[in-house]
Amino acid sequence: MIGLGRMGANMTQRLLLAGHKIVVYDQNSDAVTASRAGGAVAATSVAELVDKLSAPRAVWIMLPAGTVTDTVIDELAGLLAPGDAVIDGGNANYKDTLRRGEQLSHRGIHLLDAGTSGGVWGLAEGYSLMVGGDLDTFRRLEPIFQALAPAEDKGYSHVGPTGAGHFTKMVHNGVEYALMQAYAEGFELLQAKQGDFDLDLTAIAKTWQHGSVVRSWLLDLAVRALEDDPALESLSAYVDDSGEGRWTVNESVELGIPTPAITAALYQRFRSRQEEPFGARLLAALRNQFGGHAVRTSNRETE
Amino acid sequence: MIGLGRMGANMTQRLLLAGHKIVVYDQNSDAVTASRAGGAVAATSVAELVDKLSAPRAVWIMLPAGTVTDTVIDELAGLLAPGDAVIDGGNANYKDTLRRGEQLSHRGIHLLDAGTSGGVWGLAEGYSLMVGGDLDTFRRLEPIFQALAPAEDKGYSHVGPTGAGHFTKMVHNGVEYALMQAYAEGFELLQAKQGDFDLDLTAIAKTWQHGSVVRSWLLDLAVRALEDDPALESLSAYVDDSGEGRWTVNESVELGIPTPAITAALYQRFRSRQEEPFGARLLAALRNQFGGHAVRTSNRETE
Amino acid sequence: MIGLGRMGANMTQRLLLAGHKIVVYDQNSDAVTASRAGGAVAATSVAELVDKLSAPRAVWIMLPAGTVTDTVIDELAGLLAPGDAVIDGGNANYKDTLRRGEQLSHRGIHLLDAGTSGGVWGLAEGYSLMVGGDLDTFRRLEPIFQALAPAEDKGYSHVGPTGAGHFTKMVHNGVEYALMQAYAEGFELLQAKQGDFDLDLTAIAKTWQHGSVVRSWLLDLAVRALEDDPALESLSAYVDDSGEGRWTVNESVELGIPTPAITAALYQRFRSRQEEPFGARLLAALRNQFGGHAVRTSNRETE
Amino acid sequence: MIGLGRMGANMTQRLLLAGHKIVVYDQNSDAVTASRAGGAVAATSVAELVDKLSAPRAVWIMLPAGTVTDTVIDELAGLLAPGDAVIDGGNANYKDTLRRGEQLSHRGIHLLDAGTSGGVWGLAEGYSLMVGGDLDTFRRLEPIFQALAPAEDKGYSHVGPTGAGHFTKMVHNGVEYALMQAYAEGFELLQAKQGDFDLDLTAIAKTWQHGSVVRSWLLDLAVRALEDDPALESLSAYVDDSGEGRWTVNESVELGIPTPAITAALYQRFRSRQEEPFGARLLAALRNQFGGHAVRTSNRETE
Repeated sequence: MIGLGRMGANMTQRLLLAGHKIVVYDQNSDAVTASRAGGAVAATSVAELVDKLSAPRAVWIMLPAGTVTDTVIDELAGLLAPGDAVIDGGNANYKDTLRRGEQLSHRGIHLLDAGTSGGVWGLAEGYSLMVGGDLDTFRRLEPIFQALAPAEDKGYSHVGPTGAGHFTKMVHNGVEYALMQAYAEGFELLQAKQGDFDLDLTAIAKTWQHGSVVRSWLLDLAVRALEDDPALESLSAYVDDSGEGRWTVNESVELGIPTPAITAALYQRFRSRQEEPFGARLLAALRNQFGGHAVRTSNRETE
Repeated sequence: MIGLGRMGANMTQRLLLAGHKIVVYDQNSDAVTASRAGGAVAATSVAELVDKLSAPRAVWIMLPAGTVTDTVIDELAGLLAPGDAVIDGGNANYKDTLRRGEQLSHRGIHLLDAGTSGGVWGLAEGYSLMVGGDLDTFRRLEPIFQALAPAEDKGYSHVGPTGAGHFTKMVHNGVEYALMQAYAEGFELLQAKQGDFDLDLTAIAKTWQHGSVVRSWLLDLAVRALEDDPALESLSAYVDDSGEGRWTVNESVELGIPTPAITAALYQRFRSRQEEPFGARLLAALRNQFGGHAVRTSNRETE
Repeated sequence: MIGLGRMGANMTQRLLLAGHKIVVYDQNSDAVTASRAGGAVAATSVAELVDKLSAPRAVWIMLPAGTVTDTVIDELAGLLAPGDAVIDGGNANYKDTLRRGEQLSHRGIHLLDAGTSGGVWGLAEGYSLMVGGDLDTFRRLEPIFQALAPAEDKGYSHVGPTGAGHFTKMVHNGVEYALMQAYAEGFELLQAKQGDFDLDLTAIAKTWQHGSVVRSWLLDLAVRALEDDPALESLSAYVDDSGEGRWTVNESVELGIPTPAITAALYQRFRSRQEEPFGARLLAALRNQFGGHAVRTSNRETE
Repeated sequence: MIGLGRMGANMTQRLLLAGHKIVVYDQNSDAVTASRAGGAVAATSVAELVDKLSAPRAVWIMLPAGTVTDTVIDELAGLLAPGDAVIDGGNANYKDTLRRGEQLSHRGIHLLDAGTSGGVWGLAEGYSLMVGGDLDTFRRLEPIFQALAPAEDKGYSHVGPTGAGHFTKMVHNGVEYALMQAYAEGFELLQAKQGDFDLDLTAIAKTWQHGSVVRSWLLDLAVRALEDDPALESLSAYVDDSGEGRWTVNESVELGIPTPAITAALYQRFRSRQEEPFGARLLAALRNQFGGHAVRTSNRETE
């Protein structure tokens, strides 16, 4: 296991609990120390990690999307032997994965892309794994996926060749954006009517958990959030995005498939991070130009 | 129970199984006969149904949204006594419910609006019930809701005064539209890439059911649908709507709350029912006008 | 002319300049005084105004959308005679207009609904008029429309029976919302790239005014706004709406016609007026729940 | 001038009419012959074209977006001398233009990117030109832009360094998509209500041309289209896109700027080209699964 962030550390722990032997490496030596305390074998470099594995090796990398993955894959390409496998469980653009798979295949190394969902809950509940890559390699490594998944026969599958795993995970996250937006809109409408109906949003969310068409795991999480802070007063309306939603929209543009709900979800996140957007100021200016409508002048000191 | 369509008949059956005594009426005498065979007491008119109940009466109506509800409520207003209760479990616009509640309250009759979700699965799994109206009446009738809900202590609640139940159900269905649209967009992207990756959509949907952030009951239904017909070849892309999505959009317009994902879901349904929409023909015409771009001429014989 | 707000006062002036004789009334006596100074005959009440006209009378009302129009129409219904005409030039929901037309027709009074566009520029450039109602009455009053329009043969027309004028004006304003949003988005993209390309937005807007597919009167107004304040620094991103956009969306919902661009325009206005919307806070909460993602805590002191 | 398609041929003609001397080349010798008949000097190859120009040369290329531009630029890079200029007037992704500008600058050749709008009307009315690149080169070649623009002092400008011209043109076309969609939605609403109000869409469009807030050149084109075919019966609802809208959406995703109207416009075009989309079939399947709602079965013979 290379990469012991929240996801990598938890997955290591789940694999150890299932009886797997794991060699771990992370740039952050504290993270390595913590995993070692949990039963993992520590390595102080990628080379040492490879050295401690016996062929055919399986190296799971769990890194943030971006160039660091390329650096590690470059290094692994020089260290691993034909027949070895790299499993990329992080979020990567599937086009990068196709390129990396090609690069590794020149050396006889298999790249499995294992799109992984489950977040901080995966340690206890198991992860959902969408795996792309060579089918024989997938079969050989299936015990790993079985240990990470919620059950031996559930929550993981081989979805296609290299790239297919990350493509599927990208779509998965696009769907996730739109599902979250669906609940956000619904609860915002309920909250807007609280003055008239004195609605108890937490009670409503809990009612929807049982027997309703909209029950889901995200709704369960909404219940938890509302139980913690019924008016969500402690939170700012600032919503980040991690890139997968953007890839999904770019993909829908490339494929010519309309995805208005997913895109709306992404755009609402963008909008949540804007203050005094230029477009809205232009709208105010235009209304003033043609209709003499009053505008609100800005209080901004500097821009 | 007045109204023995799919929903009313199943709810009657679930209540009977829980030991409740039910008098039933429906315009369709076959439906009445079927419920009687299941243990219900048959009535041949609303008046007879009221006559067979002892005070304080509780009359559950389960009718399609629209004027028929007004007709039945008008009739009940003349037959019931102060302290009796009408429970409207159908889908109604909450503004109509406010009006009907006002009408019945003049005669001392309580109107509970019990937004009901669960569809054809409710019989076996129980219904989710969002109930508005007088709290004491709700408490008195709570055994009914407990029998209909998935469990005695789950899946039903008193959400506010009369109107609040149908308002909450309306928002619930708005959320449902957007959730469905989220999956529709995701699976459409997967399907569009099947040529490249030979993706097994059913296997992917099943993988998402376990451990993933997007797991939900609607996803479970998607799995069932894909297992029945993996390419959905037997279905036309024609999607109806039952009105609740429209009410939700109108409400968001009235409240000044943006609901882009719910609205996108509704508009995609509208679009699914259009052939050769005028707007798109105008776009083609404009492109031809300014750019000399080729247009496809129509094959329509008449319009 | 009843109603001497910005629109009514300017229209009175344009009609006076064209040689028409106008009796004016407004609750605000200052407005009446100003119009009298311009050559209008003043009235101190609706009754006096009617009294000063000779049959067949034509009473133009130019009031804000809402109940005040009903009050005035009720009063006029009692004062006018069969064969007289009321022209409603304000923004009204066409369904209200249908109802009012019905009300007046019982007394033999014609209601023309003259959807009026042009804003503060109408005085100098003329107004665009979409007129519904009885065709003979329209023909009789055509000189009024010719005087208000940009030219004797341009910019006004009879579009259909009573209601058709306000329906057409409603759609007109829906289109206007989306056109404005189109420019808002485009200039926001340009502004976002100013750091890289040092773009001169005013110069670009002026270039688009000549020879380009996107040239329009709204673009001309954008040029004026940018020339006044190139970075729009004096303006707040707070955008009001006057109701016509909402009616258009409700109409598209009723007709089952998807209008995603018009709706997006309306929703962006709604969003411009929100601070810390609940939905976005729920999104932040959900991300934190499943992924342990950091959230921004609120600085709000009270809510 | 390299590239004598509709745009290139017309621009050549407009430049010739303004007294410029033009050497032309196109793969299609018929196009070259036609331009020669109009007064241009013909070349049978890019090399011959370059040969016939005297330094400092200016080569305008007017090619479809794509790899052919790279081929021609590669060839020109080998033929031109330091101080010469290439003007790319076609639609190119500004990122490609940045790369090409870098490539040419290594040889001392300037690349001006002249985003060009005007379509088939440009010949008579002049083109709108948004020019990026070296300012001195722009100044030297300004007579060309003046001849192509609608007037000597209008409709062209230097908007920034290389890339800024095509970036601005991309945004321009994004705006154009949304403007077109705005009218498409409005006229579709009018058309949907024709049954009730017997609306004359052509008359309405003509009314809007004068005095109204929505007047524009695109509206003028809509009038032409409706005059040709008032019900647009001859046209299919199939709307192509040329790539610029896609680039705009990708850019807004990259910049984190929400562009819901532009994106809606693009997605409606995508949707216009789909038949029986998978997503809608899944919606129908889900409705059937939870509610037992009837579905329309497909008539498709094969898929």
